[in-house]
Amino acid sequence: MNYSNIPVAQSIIGHCKVNGINNIIISPGSRNAPLTLSFTEDPFFDCFSIVDERCAAFFALGMAQNLQRPVALVCTSGSALLNYYPAIAEAFYSEIPLVVISADRPSYKIDIGDGQTIRQDHVYDRHIGYSANLRQDLIHATGRINRYRPEWLEGKDLKTEQELVDTFNHGELNKAFSIVIQNKLPVHVNVPFEEPLYDLEEMDLMLPDAIPAPMQNPLNLPDEVLDSWNNAEKKIVLVGVNHPNSISKDVLDTLGNDASVVVFTETTSNIHHPNFFNSIDSILAPIELSGSKHTLFENLRPDVLITVGGHVVSKKIKAFLREYTPKYHWHVGATKANDTFFCLGKHFEYSVNDFFRKLYDQNGKKSSPYFEKWNHVKLQYMKGRKSYLKKIPYSDFLVFDKLLQSIPKNYQLQLANSSTIRYTQLFELDPTLEVFCNRGTSGIDGSTSTAMGASVYNESPTLLITGDLSFFYDSNALWNDYIRSDFRIILINNGGGGIFRILPGRKDTEAYERFFETKHALKASQLCEMFHVGYSTADDGNSLEKALEEFYKPADLPKLLEVHTPRLINNKILTDYFHFISCKEY
Amino acid sequence: MNYSNIPVAQSIIGHCKVNGINNIIISPGSRNAPLTLSFTEDPFFDCFSIVDERCAAFFALGMAQNLQRPVALVCTSGSALLNYYPAIAEAFYSEIPLVVISADRPSYKIDIGDGQTIRQDHVYDRHIGYSANLRQDLIHATGRINRYRPEWLEGKDLKTEQELVDTFNHGELNKAFSIVIQNKLPVHVNVPFEEPLYDLEEMDLMLPDAIPAPMQNPLNLPDEVLDSWNNAEKKIVLVGVNHPNSISKDVLDTLGNDASVVVFTETTSNIHHPNFFNSIDSILAPIELSGSKHTLFENLRPDVLITVGGHVVSKKIKAFLREYTPKYHWHVGATKANDTFFCLGKHFEYSVNDFFRKLYDQNGKKSSPYFEKWNHVKLQYMKGRKSYLKKIPYSDFLVFDKLLQSIPKNYQLQLANSSTIRYTQLFELDPTLEVFCNRGTSGIDGSTSTAMGASVYNESPTLLITGDLSFFYDSNALWNDYIRSDFRIILINNGGGGIFRILPGRKDTEAYERFFETKHALKASQLCEMFHVGYSTADDGNSLEKALEEFYKPADLPKLLEVHTPRLINNKILTDYFHFISCKEY
Repeated sequence: MNYSNIPVAQSIIGHCKVNGINNIIISPGSRNAPLTLSFTEDPFFDCFSIVDERCAAFFALGMAQNLQRPVALVCTSGSALLNYYPAIAEAFYSEIPLVVISADRPSYKIDIGDGQTIRQDHVYDRHIGYSANLRQDLIHATGRINRYRPEWLEGKDLKTEQELVDTFNHGELNKAFSIVIQNKLPVHVNVPFEEPLYDLEEMDLMLPDAIPAPMQNPLNLPDEVLDSWNNAEKKIVLVGVNHPNSISKDVLDTLGNDASVVVFTETTSNIHHPNFFNSIDSILAPIELSGSKHTLFENLRPDVLITVGGHVVSKKIKAFLREYTPKYHWHVGATKANDTFFCLGKHFEYSVNDFFRKLYDQNGKKSSPYFEKWNHVKLQYMKGRKSYLKKIPYSDFLVFDKLLQSIPKNYQLQLANSSTIRYTQLFELDPTLEVFCNRGTSGIDGSTSTAMGASVYNESPTLLITGDLSFFYDSNALWNDYIRSDFRIILINNGGGGIFRILPGRKDTEAYERFFETKHALKASQLCEMFHVGYSTADDGNSLEKALEEFYKPADLPKLLEVHTPRLINNKILTDYFHFISCKEY
Repeated sequence: MNYSNIPVAQSIIGHCKVNGINNIIISPGSRNAPLTLSFTEDPFFDCFSIVDERCAAFFALGMAQNLQRPVALVCTSGSALLNYYPAIAEAFYSEIPLVVISADRPSYKIDIGDGQTIRQDHVYDRHIGYSANLRQDLIHATGRINRYRPEWLEGKDLKTEQELVDTFNHGELNKAFSIVIQNKLPVHVNVPFEEPLYDLEEMDLMLPDAIPAPMQNPLNLPDEVLDSWNNAEKKIVLVGVNHPNSISKDVLDTLGNDASVVVFTETTSNIHHPNFFNSIDSILAPIELSGSKHTLFENLRPDVLITVGGHVVSKKIKAFLREYTPKYHWHVGATKANDTFFCLGKHFEYSVNDFFRKLYDQNGKKSSPYFEKWNHVKLQYMKGRKSYLKKIPYSDFLVFDKLLQSIPKNYQLQLANSSTIRYTQLFELDPTLEVFCNRGTSGIDGSTSTAMGASVYNESPTLLITGDLSFFYDSNALWNDYIRSDFRIILINNGGGGIFRILPGRKDTEAYERFFETKHALKASQLCEMFHVGYSTADDGNSLEKALEEFYKPADLPKLLEVHTPRLINNKILTDYFHFISCKEY
């Protein structure tokens, strides 16, 4: 096989290969030629070419999210890697494994006025699992060795330098690949290359040892934990972002049938049971708006709170649990234990399934009125929501109800931030849907690219629902050759950042419309034409219904459905919804 | 006047106002509401709304480049500010003053799973003049004070906390504004805000003391410097990126008429004299390609090299001066002294004009054959270029010649990276043009946005010349309300990253086209329709000529001219050019 003749390039390729990291997202450049040439020559690797590095990184993020294993990114030197940063921060907080490989100039060319040269090493240090700053092949850096040789080479002779450099680089790569595989965090490998960059040699690639998969901690629950759980009559299990099929049906059934346990799920929790509470905001709003709010909440304050998974979307549940803090808050699973409610006790880094099975091992379910108390409010809002949908005009709220019902079974559903995910949380979803949203940083910057990356290897088609600001922000997401013809986008275009209309502040000023809502009159039709995406549009109930009938049918091109909704009334209809389900007379 | 009732917001507004920083580029969000509301209420400030933060930051960069004074950026919390980073690195290396103000959540909400929350403080530390990490108003952080109070508040009582916080923040702001004004580097102000965020109060804004303008160092040249200069017979003055009208005519005349001095300028040097050498690559290539290269270069090796301004584009001059290093390399002026040639001696932080006047103060010009030696090659390539243009087919090379000649006098010319600037360097430009290019990091990521920002206050119209990858990369640059109707874009679309065809490596493989050249079939017509930009196109000499006739005429809309050139022949024509001017028989 042909690989770059530069040892450190071979070493990187070897570490990727032995660890099964075969998906490589490459952005164009010359400095990264040793990597691009090596990756693309070896058929083990599936390489993807994406020009805009911001999109490339979110694409990689989506793919790694979908595959649940690391994906690698390769870019040239200079500001290229800074464009990766939004996706890297998302990966850091969503615990998605990415290997970011940035080609660099040799260190003696930094900060002396050379082109496409910045301080690349450690540039992500605030949001990265590990920064491996590799050393250049000093033997090639003719004439500069003495001036620029790193301290750790002091006293060594030239002959052994290459060996020392290789050992150092191998150690750094080992650390980086350990973190990305064991801790599922993004890592950064910065690698300086001397020219010439384009020379290949026929060789057998040396493979290092593979990094072992992360070990499961042996389960060991102290008696006081079991006792606290068994004695508690009010228990909440709150599930944040969670990968589909990661929690077993027996565990879900057990939790769903324990009257002392209330399971709050979100759209991104990807778990379902008839007794779970899946629209947190719909259930909390009526209590918040009640005259006896304090008594009601005090009554519902849990003794034990168990959190599972990643970030939680609902602001209302955060507000509730921060004010009415449980006696115990335990986090379960390999995901980071966030002290979201300022009362985190223990983090049980065990398998979620094993943990709950153990909890119920020697003890039955507990009789308690807790579930029924919550269920009462749930039945109320479900009835209220039904009535409310009948009486409101065409608007975001109504559109979300309609289109969420339209999604065919088994689709992957990707949701953009932030109105989209918040609206979706108010409705039931078919349990066969698998739902994702970038909630690590909750940015609007890469939802389309993420969905695109996540769709590549998915068994089912993917639907992205997005708002207009998110969509136009990430319009370069459409600039690649990897959009499947069954990829679908529904764009809710309400002419600006509708979510800002829900927030406080005067909404009737020109400054408000310009600087908060950022009103615009853009449509997606031209982008669809440019990037060869089928386009249809709807602007009322009838046209929406008609458009949805055609929308999911197979076609030669991916499709986008742009749904225009009236900019000014959406926020009132949303606010009124919470009031409507709070009053019992409908 | 109405301002946010949050003291730290008022303090930031006051520092901007007293220092004359009146241009504020705002991206939408809620966490930054205290700033957005205050800036937009006060008519002292001109506020601009741009959604995509990557574009917003380059827009601010262009504006600050044009005005030569600081421009402020305001964004919300989360990944928003990471999208600023490419422009901030450019500003850092191009020494362009930006005040980046990022709204943040209060510190106790970081890393606990809250939405739109990352580690914002110090995030730009590798490429920033100063990071001011302001403290929140602790008195508002009810209930969390004891847990989260910073160490420096230890032992203070609650009553004095607000005062201490204010003093700390004022000191940090003073440091940041000193750096941005005195050192012309970007600075980052990160400011946490507690809710509520939307409350205003009627008040007189307290103004702090203004930061004084940077002091000029009194000129003091040691005798040995004067002696070295006067004794040298071979002197090169190399001018990098340099603002128009910053070097006086008398200085340029003196240098241009000294036979021992050779002045190398670049397209971005913005200085002109008949005796200057303005196409460095055209003059060095014939020597590089000559059989007696070494002797010729040794003969031309300078005794003294003086550099002025920012980064240098030409790779050939870097290669020449790195191999044939001068005895002395001095950098003159307030710009950073880069050790580009590994032989930097002194940095004279004086006014460039004063420095050169002093050099020539007591000494006349020196007779020397040095100028004539270089001029000989110059006359040769000028003749050669003329002949070459007559014999080549329609291609990038020919198109650049034609369109550079077409630009009306006094235009601001903005050039994208990287083919665009490199081609432009091969031709003469009208001396009334003012030329800019992002050469700090030489990225393709924000050229259009930069040009847009630079055009806002410019007296003359602006023309941007860009390549297809740069243009499509930054297509969101067109998404704002501030594009002047006299703004013009010429897009050279050769269907991919043509510059990679000039580099080594096999060009006939599918992998090459996909991963290096990133071949595409995109056109700009749909984007122009979407963003209301007039569109015309050319694909041969005749249609180009016709299009250029109409192109600069006044119109209601800005205009874009898309010039399609043949993808495959451009690199050969460019390479052949250097060979052609090297042989004396044409």
